[in-house]
Amino acid sequence: MPAEGDEMHSPNAPARDDAAQTAAAVLDRLRSSMPRVHCITNAVAQNFTANVLLAAGAVPSMTLSGEEIGAFVASAQALLVNLGTFDRERREATSIAVDAAVRNELPWVLDPVFVDRAPQRADYARDLIFLGPKAMRLNHAEFSALAGAAPSDEAVAAFARVKSTVVGLSGETDRVADGTRLATVANGHPLMATVTAMGCAGSALVAACHGVEADPWRATVAGLVIIGVAGELAAAKASGPGSFAVAILDELHNLDERTLVSRARIQIAKAK
Amino acid sequence: MPAEGDEMHSPNAPARDDAAQTAAAVLDRLRSSMPRVHCITNAVAQNFTANVLLAAGAVPSMTLSGEEIGAFVASAQALLVNLGTFDRERREATSIAVDAAVRNELPWVLDPVFVDRAPQRADYARDLIFLGPKAMRLNHAEFSALAGAAPSDEAVAAFARVKSTVVGLSGETDRVADGTRLATVANGHPLMATVTAMGCAGSALVAACHGVEADPWRATVAGLVIIGVAGELAAAKASGPGSFAVAILDELHNLDERTLVSRARIQIAKAK
Amino acid sequence: MPAEGDEMHSPNAPARDDAAQTAAAVLDRLRSSMPRVHCITNAVAQNFTANVLLAAGAVPSMTLSGEEIGAFVASAQALLVNLGTFDRERREATSIAVDAAVRNELPWVLDPVFVDRAPQRADYARDLIFLGPKAMRLNHAEFSALAGAAPSDEAVAAFARVKSTVVGLSGETDRVADGTRLATVANGHPLMATVTAMGCAGSALVAACHGVEADPWRATVAGLVIIGVAGELAAAKASGPGSFAVAILDELHNLDERTLVSRARIQIAKAK
Repeated sequence: MPAEGDEMHSPNAPARDDAAQTAAAVLDRLRSSMPRVHCITNAVAQNFTANVLLAAGAVPSMTLSGEEIGAFVASAQALLVNLGTFDRERREATSIAVDAAVRNELPWVLDPVFVDRAPQRADYARDLIFLGPKAMRLNHAEFSALAGAAPSDEAVAAFARVKSTVVGLSGETDRVADGTRLATVANGHPLMATVTAMGCAGSALVAACHGVEADPWRATVAGLVIIGVAGELAAAKASGPGSFAVAILDELHNLDERTLVSRARIQIAKAK
Repeated sequence: MPAEGDEMHSPNAPARDDAAQTAAAVLDRLRSSMPRVHCITNAVAQNFTANVLLAAGAVPSMTLSGEEIGAFVASAQALLVNLGTFDRERREATSIAVDAAVRNELPWVLDPVFVDRAPQRADYARDLIFLGPKAMRLNHAEFSALAGAAPSDEAVAAFARVKSTVVGLSGETDRVADGTRLATVANGHPLMATVTAMGCAGSALVAACHGVEADPWRATVAGLVIIGVAGELAAAKASGPGSFAVAILDELHNLDERTLVSRARIQIAKAK
Repeated sequence: MPAEGDEMHSPNAPARDDAAQTAAAVLDRLRSSMPRVHCITNAVAQNFTANVLLAAGAVPSMTLSGEEIGAFVASAQALLVNLGTFDRERREATSIAVDAAVRNELPWVLDPVFVDRAPQRADYARDLIFLGPKAMRLNHAEFSALAGAAPSDEAVAAFARVKSTVVGLSGETDRVADGTRLATVANGHPLMATVTAMGCAGSALVAACHGVEADPWRATVAGLVIIGVAGELAAAKASGPGSFAVAILDELHNLDERTLVSRARIQIAKAK
């Protein structure tokens, strides 16, 4: 963690403050405009994802029925497509939902869960990326499986540029690239990896931010900072993964903009 | 909230006390006879719904398999049909389950989730109402979509009368009408709206009450009072929606009849 | 509970200590080798099951898609087959998954949920037992439905011997038999019965233990002791079923080997 003096003299400090202020503004807009996020996500994650969205101020909807998902997406503010359960029903739903998102110019976010574990998922994810998600949120193994390269700053930026999307790469430090801009987000806590669906719920929160912030790179940074700071605050009160999962919902609900800005650990660099 | 003096002189006070005593008796019977409630509900709500039923003393079962749902319903004490996930599997299961409920004279409760958002759901809900649910639990938007009228006392009572069912309308103050009787229930807490599936779980609890109370109007009032009082007690201990969802299970489990009666805020009026 | 002196003079004390030490060693291996457990389980249980596995140190995977479940199982360390939701999708997935487990000599555990409630489930469970699960975890009603006999020590041992499997029978005191050995495990707490999916999650933990312990009888004893001790510790901190479900995840995560050994209440007897 940089000393305060470092930060004050850093050429990136104004940009960092700007990104933190943007995240705070996005959080405020989540609560005032309550965007509805339609989520195609796995059965393990559905309940926790819905509760994370509600705690942050957004509204979840989750139907997978082919007959009505088009109407649900068309009237939503954002769409999440999570590949965590890769069954026929969800693939049919995804096809209709992404089509509705594209036609209605709705932002949608892809979470290509486990594409490193089964080649069919990777193929399917590549087809989806071609349809233009505003952002992808994925981990190192998933990035490598899709990009064919280790997730260096250069590889992440190049992948974002070539695919015309934002890459939100999670890790000990998150990275967010859109081909011209690169941010690192150093918020979060190791307990986040001990709760199932935490990453899936984080992706849903990123999608919610896209529903209230038109710049996809800023929206992605905001989502990762908000969940990361809430995770740090929750960890300070938790006794283990059970109480942590409860506390992060409380902290998301109670998070104020001043705390968010003061705890945000964002570094901005030009993409290389 | 009325002053104590008001209540003592109210012509409805005896009826109110009677309704609160009935709710306490219903709670007692939930715990002593442990009715099994078969729930057709959405994937987001299944786990929390099961835990709410267990906390209140009832026993959940949740299979959707067409081959066996008939047998599960036939040996249950009540059935919940929640339209929250409107897929083919659940519609097939609903058809078999309602048929089994009707043949076995089992009470069943309908929660027509989101009928205001997709016309197919509203059509489907209308078909189900024709099959005779003992009660419906729904919010203002859902009522308006089905009844074609804003939820005034008159409209709620008329809808209940025409459809020969009990309408349990949730809102800041809940209303329960059966065409000749109308109760308002002013229990509950705003945190209940910040937890996913709270309404669905409340409907399951209403169904459980139908399993131990033959008067559908009293059963519905009892269910709404029990979940509402548990919500108030939980809110007093919660720091946000995460800890609230945990605390309401504890409070349902620990709720004693004296507390329930003393906190019940029921008003009885004749239906207009 | 026996006085300390009783235990010191008991002929079974060394075996009991050995079993407790084995459980501690198994817990240690869960954390160091982080076995992946593929779980075919019901929608109600998926989230809690995943969180129990993560809290204990294991890694869950849950896909049911016929196209990829074979690959997921082949690279896992253990498989759980839970019949809690008995739909077509899960039966197809089970067929492929068990086949992959058998071909890869992967241990798999069967939880024949509700076989006492629907004859199709019992038939299906019998077919699965023929395929050689390393262990079964079931309650008294489920045992009686499958074995056609009340669960006496003799009946449990005989069933295990005939079916060449380990029977892990849950109850106030659990019993674990493999035909030649019989252990009783007196850990656990009544609050465990007030949380949905607690048994399912316990079965998943048993499967995880099979992923790091080659002796199926010892693995089953270890899993039941670990979840039972965590339940006792959680109950001491809980105010009801909601906080209990949270606390058991914390306790599983924080459980140290010394506490596990000192609290383990295992009795070893020869199978009759």
